[in-house]
Amino acid sequence: MSSPTLAPLSPTDRVTLRRVRERAESDRAALYDVLAAGLVCHLGVVVDGSPLVIPTVYGFDPDGPDRDGTLYLHGSVAARSLLAAPDTSICVTVTLVDGLVLARSAFHHSMNYRSAMIVGTPRVVTDPAERERALMAVVNHIVPDRASTLRAHTRKELAATRVLALPLHEASVKARRGDVVDEPEDVRPGSWAGVVPVQAMIGVPRTNPDCEPGTPVPSDVRAIADRPRR
Amino acid sequence: MSSPTLAPLSPTDRVTLRRVRERAESDRAALYDVLAAGLVCHLGVVVDGSPLVIPTVYGFDPDGPDRDGTLYLHGSVAARSLLAAPDTSICVTVTLVDGLVLARSAFHHSMNYRSAMIVGTPRVVTDPAERERALMAVVNHIVPDRASTLRAHTRKELAATRVLALPLHEASVKARRGDVVDEPEDVRPGSWAGVVPVQAMIGVPRTNPDCEPGTPVPSDVRAIADRPRR
Repeated sequence: MSSPTLAPLSPTDRVTLRRVRERAESDRAALYDVLAAGLVCHLGVVVDGSPLVIPTVYGFDPDGPDRDGTLYLHGSVAARSLLAAPDTSICVTVTLVDGLVLARSAFHHSMNYRSAMIVGTPRVVTDPAERERALMAVVNHIVPDRASTLRAHTRKELAATRVLALPLHEASVKARRGDVVDEPEDVRPGSWAGVVPVQAMIGVPRTNPDCEPGTPVPSDVRAIADRPRR
Repeated sequence: MSSPTLAPLSPTDRVTLRRVRERAESDRAALYDVLAAGLVCHLGVVVDGSPLVIPTVYGFDPDGPDRDGTLYLHGSVAARSLLAAPDTSICVTVTLVDGLVLARSAFHHSMNYRSAMIVGTPRVVTDPAERERALMAVVNHIVPDRASTLRAHTRKELAATRVLALPLHEASVKARRGDVVDEPEDVRPGSWAGVVPVQAMIGVPRTNPDCEPGTPVPSDVRAIADRPRR
């Protein structure tokens, strides 16, 4: 997954992985892979000194205007989480569960997973062209190329929407892969251990009741349907 | 999903859902349903004034010693996130993505999902019996009844592990279900919209290479394998 043309992740102290360093992958391509595979992120904000963690959709652009690319979040202008964010640090985490690691002891039970954490101070996107690109990036993140099949946003829709940009600069990727690792004395004849894979399955599209009977499922939707999201 | 025998959720101001109130489900059974279906939670802590969001496994006990039941987290005694937590507020969020809501406009694209948010000040679990129960709850959360098939923790394992308990009292559940809702003027003959279901699929167990050939997959693992996690 590494590419010499990509800048390595530049973790600061707060995103340096202090535990289990072998699980850190300081590699920008791994970051993009996790972001591409995820469906929602968990956004951490501090409100009145307390953390709140909110699930939300996102989009990203490795060639966005921020250092090392841009992660885009959006929400209602009235949403507390996005009001709280400007000028204060936020944290965005995307986690993919890849397997249940079922060991011979409770202590060595674990998960196989990939997780990306991005921290920074977001920028409110005000440029109309970047706002449109950002919102389309969020839609295209769910279904590639979908935005090109949709009408443009109305002024009213844009006025109701706040868009935040977070640099992909201060980030880390953490993962666990592979087999169970047990204490040697627990590995006895007949004792079972193993990994059970987990994946997000995208199912078969259910056409909306307000569609004309026989309306075909468009090709962009068919391209992601009935297969795992990786 | 409601039950008259369960106390309703008692959201305080910080977990009151200010946006889209119809998505709030003030129902304790809905909270337990989301917690039971999730595999990992996202733990929010504040470190040096900035939020950090960390994926981690969890367990819960509706009859635990805390008000409205107990959520259990565990980690290495050296882990920063769990060191930071005692005596300060944390937030635990569990999110299940159930569907991609693909509308006729970008604005009405959404996700069907269920999400639980629990906030509070955790308690470090020191009682040996509760520590053992908590760690077993985490294992049983991944695979029901698995803990009873495993050896007890060693003293060394217990000494290396910090266990936190968070009351399930201050909590909220938010969900979106159902069809696409488009602007009436976008609903035109031949225009498609629909929901694509998403689910976490638990796959077929891969027996660890250090198992004796022919070691059977135990019944607790077979019971969760090769089916969706709901």
